[in-house]
Amino acid sequence: MAALFRGSRSILHSCSKNVELVLVSSRSMASKTPVGFIGLGNMGSPMAKNLLKHGYPVIATDVFLESCKELQDEGAQILESPAEVADKADRIITMLPSSPNVVEVYTGANGILKKVKKGTLLIDSSTIDPSVSREMALAAEKMGAVFMDAPVSGGVGAASLAKLTFMVGGLEEEYTAAQELLTCMGANVVYCGQVGTGQAAKICNNMLLAIGMIGTAETMNLGIRLGLDPKLLAQILNMSSGRCWSSDTYNPVPGVMDGVPSANNYQGGFGTTLMTKDLGLAQHTATNTKTSIPLGSLAHQLYRVMCARGYANKDFSSVFQFLREQDEEAEKKGD
Amino acid sequence: MAALFRGSRSILHSCSKNVELVLVSSRSMASKTPVGFIGLGNMGSPMAKNLLKHGYPVIATDVFLESCKELQDEGAQILESPAEVADKADRIITMLPSSPNVVEVYTGANGILKKVKKGTLLIDSSTIDPSVSREMALAAEKMGAVFMDAPVSGGVGAASLAKLTFMVGGLEEEYTAAQELLTCMGANVVYCGQVGTGQAAKICNNMLLAIGMIGTAETMNLGIRLGLDPKLLAQILNMSSGRCWSSDTYNPVPGVMDGVPSANNYQGGFGTTLMTKDLGLAQHTATNTKTSIPLGSLAHQLYRVMCARGYANKDFSSVFQFLREQDEEAEKKGD
Amino acid sequence: MAALFRGSRSILHSCSKNVELVLVSSRSMASKTPVGFIGLGNMGSPMAKNLLKHGYPVIATDVFLESCKELQDEGAQILESPAEVADKADRIITMLPSSPNVVEVYTGANGILKKVKKGTLLIDSSTIDPSVSREMALAAEKMGAVFMDAPVSGGVGAASLAKLTFMVGGLEEEYTAAQELLTCMGANVVYCGQVGTGQAAKICNNMLLAIGMIGTAETMNLGIRLGLDPKLLAQILNMSSGRCWSSDTYNPVPGVMDGVPSANNYQGGFGTTLMTKDLGLAQHTATNTKTSIPLGSLAHQLYRVMCARGYANKDFSSVFQFLREQDEEAEKKGD
Amino acid sequence: MAALFRGSRSILHSCSKNVELVLVSSRSMASKTPVGFIGLGNMGSPMAKNLLKHGYPVIATDVFLESCKELQDEGAQILESPAEVADKADRIITMLPSSPNVVEVYTGANGILKKVKKGTLLIDSSTIDPSVSREMALAAEKMGAVFMDAPVSGGVGAASLAKLTFMVGGLEEEYTAAQELLTCMGANVVYCGQVGTGQAAKICNNMLLAIGMIGTAETMNLGIRLGLDPKLLAQILNMSSGRCWSSDTYNPVPGVMDGVPSANNYQGGFGTTLMTKDLGLAQHTATNTKTSIPLGSLAHQLYRVMCARGYANKDFSSVFQFLREQDEEAEKKGD
Repeated sequence: MAALFRGSRSILHSCSKNVELVLVSSRSMASKTPVGFIGLGNMGSPMAKNLLKHGYPVIATDVFLESCKELQDEGAQILESPAEVADKADRIITMLPSSPNVVEVYTGANGILKKVKKGTLLIDSSTIDPSVSREMALAAEKMGAVFMDAPVSGGVGAASLAKLTFMVGGLEEEYTAAQELLTCMGANVVYCGQVGTGQAAKICNNMLLAIGMIGTAETMNLGIRLGLDPKLLAQILNMSSGRCWSSDTYNPVPGVMDGVPSANNYQGGFGTTLMTKDLGLAQHTATNTKTSIPLGSLAHQLYRVMCARGYANKDFSSVFQFLREQDEEAEKKGD
Repeated sequence: MAALFRGSRSILHSCSKNVELVLVSSRSMASKTPVGFIGLGNMGSPMAKNLLKHGYPVIATDVFLESCKELQDEGAQILESPAEVADKADRIITMLPSSPNVVEVYTGANGILKKVKKGTLLIDSSTIDPSVSREMALAAEKMGAVFMDAPVSGGVGAASLAKLTFMVGGLEEEYTAAQELLTCMGANVVYCGQVGTGQAAKICNNMLLAIGMIGTAETMNLGIRLGLDPKLLAQILNMSSGRCWSSDTYNPVPGVMDGVPSANNYQGGFGTTLMTKDLGLAQHTATNTKTSIPLGSLAHQLYRVMCARGYANKDFSSVFQFLREQDEEAEKKGD
Repeated sequence: MAALFRGSRSILHSCSKNVELVLVSSRSMASKTPVGFIGLGNMGSPMAKNLLKHGYPVIATDVFLESCKELQDEGAQILESPAEVADKADRIITMLPSSPNVVEVYTGANGILKKVKKGTLLIDSSTIDPSVSREMALAAEKMGAVFMDAPVSGGVGAASLAKLTFMVGGLEEEYTAAQELLTCMGANVVYCGQVGTGQAAKICNNMLLAIGMIGTAETMNLGIRLGLDPKLLAQILNMSSGRCWSSDTYNPVPGVMDGVPSANNYQGGFGTTLMTKDLGLAQHTATNTKTSIPLGSLAHQLYRVMCARGYANKDFSSVFQFLREQDEEAEKKGD
Repeated sequence: MAALFRGSRSILHSCSKNVELVLVSSRSMASKTPVGFIGLGNMGSPMAKNLLKHGYPVIATDVFLESCKELQDEGAQILESPAEVADKADRIITMLPSSPNVVEVYTGANGILKKVKKGTLLIDSSTIDPSVSREMALAAEKMGAVFMDAPVSGGVGAASLAKLTFMVGGLEEEYTAAQELLTCMGANVVYCGQVGTGQAAKICNNMLLAIGMIGTAETMNLGIRLGLDPKLLAQILNMSSGRCWSSDTYNPVPGVMDGVPSANNYQGGFGTTLMTKDLGLAQHTATNTKTSIPLGSLAHQLYRVMCARGYANKDFSSVFQFLREQDEEAEKKGD
């Protein structure tokens, strides 16, 4: 975590250097005016609560009314549709499962853009295809509104503790206004560039994360089968050029580290299904931009296989167990 | 570097815990007695010189007489064959290109084992198949000698500066004797376990290194094509779960870091040919132990392609340039 | 070719079995009424000419006027936009480079659907994402028109000789009407099922084709390096279970067969760029349908690399040359 | 099967063309002299019986005495060791599980070469690394004997029916002598070239077979998920460029063909374990010859995963079931 703060400071620093003083619109300075929130799932709910904690009136909606109840009890106002929320709030945050939901919530029959007010700031924290973010930004611009993409890294726990990392894409002069709200929900807010670059940064990080995790699992498994002690091998990798986040912070081999999913039968953490979804986005964006991602493509296919072999809801570090079991079975079978 | 020392200390510590007091043979305590050295290539030569610097008489040989001249001028005694060296020294270090050379130097017509003395300590620093190390250990044992594998990480520069890392496999009670010599040539000496585990540790580290490097190159390339600034993307990855040695210490993208091969047109560093050789060893050991290494296998094939596309002698981080050029050409071609 | 006819007959047969008698609309029986044709590129031009040869008046348009000239000289009427063509013809064929072009030509400002007449038959022979075909079909249905997808296999040569194979998706009762026109341009017309299945069939065939071609190239290259004569190896594969179209009909190794691109420095044939595009479609549809295609994904990445290494415009069988050259260079480099 | 005969004739023909008249040693003409047979497993046993049927006295041995009993009842003479067999027969056939067994049976303490007679013809039908075949040939040559590699394709059934295909490597002037015996056990005997090329041909065929099978399974699965009827898709592929042995002769999708393992819950046929072993040999030979086999490597890793997921003893076409189940589970899980 220390590393995160250090990291983030250096980034804000590096940004400030190439940011000339900008006139910030009065709206984005206005504080404690109501904030709209659309999408009250496992992530959205705790995020909205953190806004309430910071004294922001919250006007929310969700397709599932149950998810609204709880937030209502904590003081949020619940409306019927995104359009109605857009009619009442000039800063709106959306947190939705995937691209089609985002398209519906913004451009649908009762979507935000049907009643959005000029100058409204729209922040989408969903993880979707950057090209969809750019489409939404164009649609919003036509209505005189501003759209930014701000996907998060960090799970439900980080959402409750306001420890999320936000990667933000959009007009730089609107960044301060977004930052004001995002810092209520996250520990790190990073400005990435034009609209869509927030999504790009998240997709890139998670693709490299998946490659590093599968690579660490393959390597630890090979080393163990060659007679190395797992803890010793992890120490050697972590003091050498094989070091990565998956080997030194989130090791997938049971018994090597405490307090990680591998120490708890791969419960909790970041589900294989979610990683597979993000790798699908990487696959799409790579194909659309004609970029070669051989290891990223293979990682995607391997996680898809795991989803289907009963690992969908286990932490994505369970790829070690997946590869390991195999070999043990293989031995039994005398393969 | 600090990290390395810290790392290595913690390992020696962790070892000492599960090491019961052992009787160390008188031989291994004997200091400044002659040390044999076989294989005076780019790596072997500076290693042998560091032994001379520490006051050890060196008795050496190499198939190429030229390579012997220089060392002779620095005071080493040069003999005709490994057998003759074995006749004169009771501690011998070998540093050879590949498995067949090791087999020849140890078991050949004029090989070490033809004249090796009982109790001689044989340390092989070549990077070879762990199963060949075990064969050599058995052959040595039959002659009453002791064989340890101690492959290095670090290149010619580290060899000259005595900054190599040695990964040692063999009888634990002989480790101290080996350590005495290896510390003259390296900054880190790590005991890995039975014979062959030194090779295993190196192969594992380099396989994960290759996966991390190609993954970093794919990811940086994808991010750049999605509109992210390379330096900013590197910062984001390095403060997040995508972090790895290739992203934060040896970034493959020109302009992101100074003092790395990518800042110098991929000159120097660790050649693609050498990485390809190590991945071939990983492939062999994985097949022999029936271990699945999907990403490791693909990394091997990709580096083989690069070897053939003119990248053989460039640093292995040039995989970024390899992927990058492609895409630029592809655009020109309107693919 | 014999095989093709036999194959296609058996398919039509198998279809007829599960087709109950359908009332065919008068329109689709009407013969020699004008046919609209949009997209006069390398493929579209010869296709339209074959319609003229069969006595169909052709009303055509293309964004590039030059491409229209030639067809005009052969008697076609040239109009300004897809909308105008739709205003004059009740059967329209489109042959366009990719999905965005199709979307524009059908739903754009001057698109077909702006002036399409009720009951018009729209046949799209472009190779695009099946989900886009389904979107176009829905849009056409809203206007009372019928949309079918009918991508082709076979290149410019087959287009000129009316030897194309059409894979058709759409309402079965409209198939006869489409068949009447498609048989003027192709030797095989296969009904595949609902809208989009024509695209699906083509994407599937080309994915397996790419896998078989790269596999054949890898295998022939390995065999040659192991000392086998290429012609003999091809004979052995072709009488054994390794047999595939790429080994027995389109062998990628120069000197094994005559009359194939490998016998002519990989000129002509099916360009690597086009294969890469089709593999991109396979990648998209597989991700969208959550289907694992490990070999298909890797084939896609390898062809993308080739596009960037100067193979974009060579026949896709040049993957043998690509792999082969590598190894020869590798040897020179002593890798 | 017809195809096989046609195929093989064309090969024998093509051979005869570039074979100058050779003096055939008297020994190889001698008929009905005793034949040695070492290795009486599932394959070796029926092969030896076919030699008995053709009137050849058989002198056999096997490490498991039980396996000898049955053959003894049919009239074979059973001896204690390979050395003793070599002492009594001047033509010996070996059929063993893997390279180490071959090395032991030929060069071990009681191995063939301990008592082999000058001019003896040694035929190894095991499937092993071609480099081991070459080593055995050199060792045999030193003793004045002749070694040929003659691995088979076809399973236990083909062995019983004498329908095996033999791929033979070795001195061309010895081929006739080998052919005389091999035709008693197989329907096809193909001369491939120097020692080791028999193994090379088999490894190459099976690598391409594995790639074609996985590719066919991926493609059929994708097509089905895109709405195509499996039988229709198979027909389309088989009349098009996607055609391969796995699609038109051994289709992996249940319900598409009769009389193949996919029609019988993947029982019988060619076990996944055996295919995985052959792919391991391909991996080794490719690494040793520095050949890029990206698809072959990935096929190897995928079959290794299957071995460990309970598919080890199913036919290798069960890769369709493996991929298919996945996706169904994945849907249940709402991945």
